[in-house]
This record gives sequence, structure tokens and C-alpha cells, in this order.
Amino acid sequence: MKVHKNARIAFQGERGAFSEEAAVELLGEEIVLVPTPSFEAMFSAVDASLADYILAPIENSLAGSVYRSFDLLVESRLTIVAEVIIPIAHHLIGAPRASFEGVRVVASHPVALAQCEQFFVSHPRLKRLVAEDTAGSVRDVISSGDPTRGAIAGGRAAEIYGGVILREHVEDNPENYTRFLLLSIARVNLASADKWSLVFELDHRPGALYQALAPFARRGINLMKIESRPVHGSPWQYRFYLDFQASENAGVESALAELEELVVGLRVLGSYESARVKTEAVGEPK
Amino acid sequence: MKVHKNARIAFQGERGAFSEEAAVELLGEEIVLVPTPSFEAMFSAVDASLADYILAPIENSLAGSVYRSFDLLVESRLTIVAEVIIPIAHHLIGAPRASFEGVRVVASHPVALAQCEQFFVSHPRLKRLVAEDTAGSVRDVISSGDPTRGAIAGGRAAEIYGGVILREHVEDNPENYTRFLLLSIARVNLASADKWSLVFELDHRPGALYQALAPFARRGINLMKIESRPVHGSPWQYRFYLDFQASENAGVESALAELEELVVGLRVLGSYESARVKTEAVGEPK
Repeated sequence: MKVHKNARIAFQGERGAFSEEAAVELLGEEIVLVPTPSFEAMFSAVDASLADYILAPIENSLAGSVYRSFDLLVESRLTIVAEVIIPIAHHLIGAPRASFEGVRVVASHPVALAQCEQFFVSHPRLKRLVAEDTAGSVRDVISSGDPTRGAIAGGRAAEIYGGVILREHVEDNPENYTRFLLLSIARVNLASADKWSLVFELDHRPGALYQALAPFARRGINLMKIESRPVHGSPWQYRFYLDFQASENAGVESALAELEELVVGLRVLGSYESARVKTEAVGEPK
Repeated sequence: MKVHKNARIAFQGERGAFSEEAAVELLGEEIVLVPTPSFEAMFSAVDASLADYILAPIENSLAGSVYRSFDLLVESRLTIVAEVIIPIAHHLIGAPRASFEGVRVVASHPVALAQCEQFFVSHPRLKRLVAEDTAGSVRDVISSGDPTRGAIAGGRAAEIYGGVILREHVEDNPENYTRFLLLSIARVNLASADKWSLVFELDHRPGALYQALAPFARRGINLMKIESRPVHGSPWQYRFYLDFQASENAGVESALAELEELVVGLRVLGSYESARVKTEAVGEPK
């Protein structure tokens, strides 16, 4: 994916967050990073002329779908223009001159702490301290200069704030990946697009979903992901999110035209190039 | 759902957690509550003879599916015997004799704090303090006796620890529900069962899911939920979770027999009575 030089990318969290790792992985270093304090602030950043693109987490391999991103995307006029998947590698980070042996208290977001359960079980001297986010805990530890304090976060937070990685990969499960979507107002028609994301609603009657999948099955189009959610305020109406992979000449347009007759409120959220998962995280310790 | 008197119910979290509200909502007060510190500890509680049942959160209307519960359920030999859905109502709770005007610092789990964003925006004097969980923050505030401290949690935490509800319903979004599953080793054949949960795997080829849904569509069986996830370690294999609703004589057995020929590793996770959502939370302030 290419964006113009100095394109402004809004993400949720502080400098050094995993979202920032994902932005740099997808777009390189020549972008302007725009940290935002909440999902609402992130999704309104383009309308408020604070950013050109939004990079939103949409799904984690361990924690599941990020419904808040789905909801805000559907409510917005944004379009998916790219996706990126990054491994979530947790490292123990300390202030310069800190040593692993000297650390007593380790701060991080509770989800990150929970994903490093085995590390804490093996090192009972380490006291866990919950904090608002991963990168922010690194910033606080470094600015304190206290060698008895550590924080758990991604490698980029250590780089940004000048911390030292005391222990790499303290996460329990190495299969921890987060998928992010790059969103913009302008629709981009990529020749290399091979993946489509749709949302539509269906009445809650037997066979409705089966019929809606027929246009894809008949054309040999490969479904990548499907998820159903009740529509807020409409108890028997269901919303489906569907990703499929196909080349442009695989009959995508006619499949979508057929689908439109079978469902309510079909919207193509975007067509884009599908991501390959890298095995090494950005900012991985060398 | 009826269980024997003094049945031991393991849940994740501390006394007064939302899981405890769900257990009491489903089974009444004559149960023995067994708090466990992690999902792993909860799922091993029955095998370790520490509990007769497990009550696991499976899905939240705002945050999405709880993949950790799905994974541990599939790895276990447990069966779903009931479900319950409770509204997640957040209240500001203080020590006895505290007043809302005197509170300066409010502790809770970061997810709960984030779900009360508007409340904090309206009351800028309140400083947020992240904590490991909701009920535990109430316990800490009460035991401190400090009237300048408050915590955000469900109504049951206030009851259990003897706290005072200073502001009800401080959550931004009233449509915040969590669905829990009651799990046990013994399969229960309920005459009133009208809902089935399945898991199976499919090869990643066009039309595979379409074909797998045909046995249900042909019999007019209503799909309630469908979700796909990649199988860890098998890049092109997908696992599907499917809930459907039907009466026992609607051809469920023949549909399942047909499905078994089309998919890999079909397992019925349980058949049970579908929950009705109540509009008032357990422990709701009167």
C-alpha cells in the first residue's frame, strides 16, 4: 500500500502502541502518526481534518473481533483501502541501566499482563501493576528512571521512549496476531485488490443466510470470514459481516448484484489487497 | 435451569463479579459460588473436583465473542447445559457514608471505565484509576473506608461488600449484555431444549460453508449465530461455531447426521433452553 508522503494516520492509543507498529509495517516510516485517546476520537479524525487515514484494529487472534471498530466503521462514510496483520509480541522493557534482576514491579494494560501469565508464574518476585495502556506504561517507567520498575509492551514503545528490552517475548501464546484496517474517505480502486468486505442485514428466517451465500458458492468465490450480530434495537434482524477473496474477473460484480436482491442494506466496506502475515514483529529486538 | 442444592459453580473473577450476577440470575441464591483467578483455573475446576459446574462468559454485545472461552470449551470434555444473558449495568459505588459530591478518584477495570466515558466527561473532577477488576475495586474502596474513593462495578458487588450506590447506570450504552454458558461434565437431556451449539471444521474451498448450511435450510431450522475462526496451526482450515434454534421434532437429528458427512470433527457442544433477556440487572438498585 502506498500513501502520499507525510500522510496523517490516526490510531487509537499513545505513541509506541501496537497500532503504530501496524501503521509503520503497512506504510513505512514516512507518515505522520496521529495518536487519539479513544475509538470515537479516532473515527472522527478524518471528518475533523486531523488525519487523512485511520488505522483501526478489527480482530485479534486470541481476543476476537473488535466490535467497536465494526460499529463505528458501519456508521461512518469511510472505506477500507488496505489491511495489515501484525504479531503481538510482548517484551519486558526497563529504563536505561535497569537489569532484569533488579525489576520488582511490572506495569501494563491488564490484557497484556493476562497474556503473559506464565512469565509471572515463573518469576514470582515480579509484582503486576495494571495501567491504562502498554506504551504509556513504558513512557512512565522510562521517565521515572527507576530501575526496579518495568513495563510490558511492543518493541516500538522501547524504541520511541528510549527503553531497554530486558526480556523478549514474554507472551504465553506466540499465535497472537491483530488485524488492522486502513480506512479513508476516498475510495481507491486497486488493480491488485483480491479481498472484499461486505456488510448486510437479513431477516431472521430459516434459510436466509443459505440463500445469501449461493451467489458466491455458484461462482467458486472463497469466503474468508463470516460473522453475525444482532442489529441494535431490531431484535429479529441480523447483520452479517463477510470477507471473501477473489480476483476481479471471478464474477464479483455479478455476485454482488445477485446478493443485493436477497438481502437488506448491502454495503461494500471496501476492496483491497489481502495481507500476508509476517513472522517477525516490527521493532523486533535484533 | 435447576441444579441440586449447594451445587458448586466456578466463575472467573472475585465475589461480586458480573459472572456471579449471572450465576444467581440463572440458578438462584442456593448455590455455592467458587471464584477462580483465571479462565484456565475456571475451566479446570470441575476436573479438579473444586466445582460441579462452570459459568463462562461467551459473548458481549459490545465487545464481541470471548474466544478464550470458546477455545477452552472445545479443548475440554464439558457440555453446555444452559445459557443466561444479563445486562451489564455499571454503578458508581462508595464506602458507607460517602457522598457523590465527595468522591475524587474512581477505580475499575479499564474496560468498565471505557464504557463510562460520557460519565467521566460530564464530571471532570473525577480521576480514573485502573484496577484489576470491577468487584475487587469495590472491595478495596469499602475496606479503605475513604469517602473520596469510588469504584465502578455491578450492583451485586455493592451488596456483597456493603457499599453504597452513589450513581446508578453510569454506562454510556444501555445495550450492554453478556451471554454466559453453564457447563458440566454430565450431559443433560432437557425436554425443554430448543437451542443447539455446534463446532465443526471445513476445508477452505469455495462453497464448503454453503453446502454445510443446506441441511438446516432444507428443514427450516433457524440459525442464531455463526462465526468462523482459523484453526491454530492449520492455515487453510477453518473452524465454525454455529447456534441454531429448533424444537426436538424439527428434524435436528437427521440434519446433524447429514452435516456430519459434509464437515470434519463435528461436535455438539450442547442442547439447552434459550435464554430470554431481562431488562433489569440482578442486584439492580431499587
